[in-house]
Amino acid sequence: MSILVVGSVAFDSVKTPFGERDEMLGGSATHFAMAASFFTNVSLVAVVGTDFSEKHKDVLRARNVNLEGLEQVTGETFRWKGVYGYDLNTRETIYTHLNVFADFKPKLPESATISPFLFLGNISPDLQLEVRKQVDAKLVALDTMNYWIEKTPDLLKEVLKVIDILIINDEEARELAREPNLIKATKKILQMGPNRVIVKRGEYGAVMFSQDSYFAMPAFPQEDVYDPTGAGDTFAGGFMGYLAATNQTDEAAMRRAMIYGSVMASFNVEAFGCDRLEQLSYQDVNNRFRQFKEITHFDELVFEKKIS
Amino acid sequence: MSILVVGSVAFDSVKTPFGERDEMLGGSATHFAMAASFFTNVSLVAVVGTDFSEKHKDVLRARNVNLEGLEQVTGETFRWKGVYGYDLNTRETIYTHLNVFADFKPKLPESATISPFLFLGNISPDLQLEVRKQVDAKLVALDTMNYWIEKTPDLLKEVLKVIDILIINDEEARELAREPNLIKATKKILQMGPNRVIVKRGEYGAVMFSQDSYFAMPAFPQEDVYDPTGAGDTFAGGFMGYLAATNQTDEAAMRRAMIYGSVMASFNVEAFGCDRLEQLSYQDVNNRFRQFKEITHFDELVFEKKIS
Repeated sequence: MSILVVGSVAFDSVKTPFGERDEMLGGSATHFAMAASFFTNVSLVAVVGTDFSEKHKDVLRARNVNLEGLEQVTGETFRWKGVYGYDLNTRETIYTHLNVFADFKPKLPESATISPFLFLGNISPDLQLEVRKQVDAKLVALDTMNYWIEKTPDLLKEVLKVIDILIINDEEARELAREPNLIKATKKILQMGPNRVIVKRGEYGAVMFSQDSYFAMPAFPQEDVYDPTGAGDTFAGGFMGYLAATNQTDEAAMRRAMIYGSVMASFNVEAFGCDRLEQLSYQDVNNRFRQFKEITHFDELVFEKKIS
Repeated sequence: MSILVVGSVAFDSVKTPFGERDEMLGGSATHFAMAASFFTNVSLVAVVGTDFSEKHKDVLRARNVNLEGLEQVTGETFRWKGVYGYDLNTRETIYTHLNVFADFKPKLPESATISPFLFLGNISPDLQLEVRKQVDAKLVALDTMNYWIEKTPDLLKEVLKVIDILIINDEEARELAREPNLIKATKKILQMGPNRVIVKRGEYGAVMFSQDSYFAMPAFPQEDVYDPTGAGDTFAGGFMGYLAATNQTDEAAMRRAMIYGSVMASFNVEAFGCDRLEQLSYQDVNNRFRQFKEITHFDELVFEKKIS
């Protein structure tokens, strides 16, 4: 099955303790598409300016990403600059220039209106809703952020009613539900519409909730995180990519998809921008999947000799 | 195999969002012994005052804990009071009255000098060292805290040379190694002596490092944490209890022991003080061990169809 992703394509400038890079290809749709492309065919819907070159498109084309829905308009591409602190858990935004992205109205190519798997990247909930209505999809996943939770909570709740999986980070989940305990928070979110909630916890891994299941996994242990930008979208790309490729949506497949998402995210942070995924082989991906099994496995061998 | 634990026995007063309790039986040795007693025979070495009653001893006796090494001297028992914040991750110490614990010189009964499994609870490193020298042990685990890392780093490093497993929390590991990245920090700690380091991460679970292995596990998902006091010592008790009971120290057994430690800690926080472990059945323990398998399991089924 194929995937449609709607989100941002941007030029990211990033400074981390490991170095500094200017105007790299980035954005939620880019990172998602790069990761998902390792598993299945991906179509991308986004907007860029006249400064977006063939060289930039070639990075996505090299991964077979369908760019029919990549609209190019007069003006400059979305630009963002961030500086990460010493432990990479904190970041400061230096600037956000929306540029052509400010007037983004997703235009879906006819071929994209039937997309069995749809990922609504972190854009305004009204745009997410509009896209959702136009696509005949089997499985829809959504990302959002604290900005929309605070600014447009009602619109966001409308979108939550028409999606299947919410992929969100720890603080956002607690904020959306107004509940500090994560287990209670996700129970509240499941009442809002999605039948699954995936909570990303950075260096602590990720958890997945449904009404009758719970899955928890650690992050891949990493000594050097060069650039965490796009890790969440890369996770979503690996997750959705695996599901679409196998056309499976049962609990066991969702769990394997969580691992593939984490595998892709762990590679993404090993270099700046999309550099690592550009060089990645599918063998690397499966090797790291197996490493995840190795670092989490324990025998189900209960101790039966009770002394009192 | 049997276990010897040296640490504190105290009266804890605790306030959490779920209520307030005064002068409950607590202390590192108490929580450790209660948990380990579900797996094997435990001897406890600690000191209490004249206010420590038969009723208190009966709680430990009910779990078959050997109290031959529980010295009772003139004066008051160690008292501690703490208040936990709304999310239970922060706590404020209201008072710490060491009382008879201030002059604690562990006195080992003759029978305790041969104890195949030894746990050195969080006391001064010079006392830990003294006990370590007197015991003929197969496996020695150690707990410590930021106070000793800051006040007596050289003494602590002496102890680290003569133990097998350091059980420590996330911030303490980073502080001990003076390294913000946890993977790098534990590599440094492994150079200091222990051949294993277990890092407790509260609601995020725990990880275990050796020179050639890494294991990561989530915490048990809990909506209501009534009282986190003693969770770390309870973890250590379940961990060491399982190893001693099975007399296994290989990687696979260590991983199962991590799960049993987490199982015991997850029960401990469900009620104040030792209340939950007093009521616990061994069937409860094994049921939760199986639940840990259920919430962490995924199939090792890699995706082989690569499209590009």
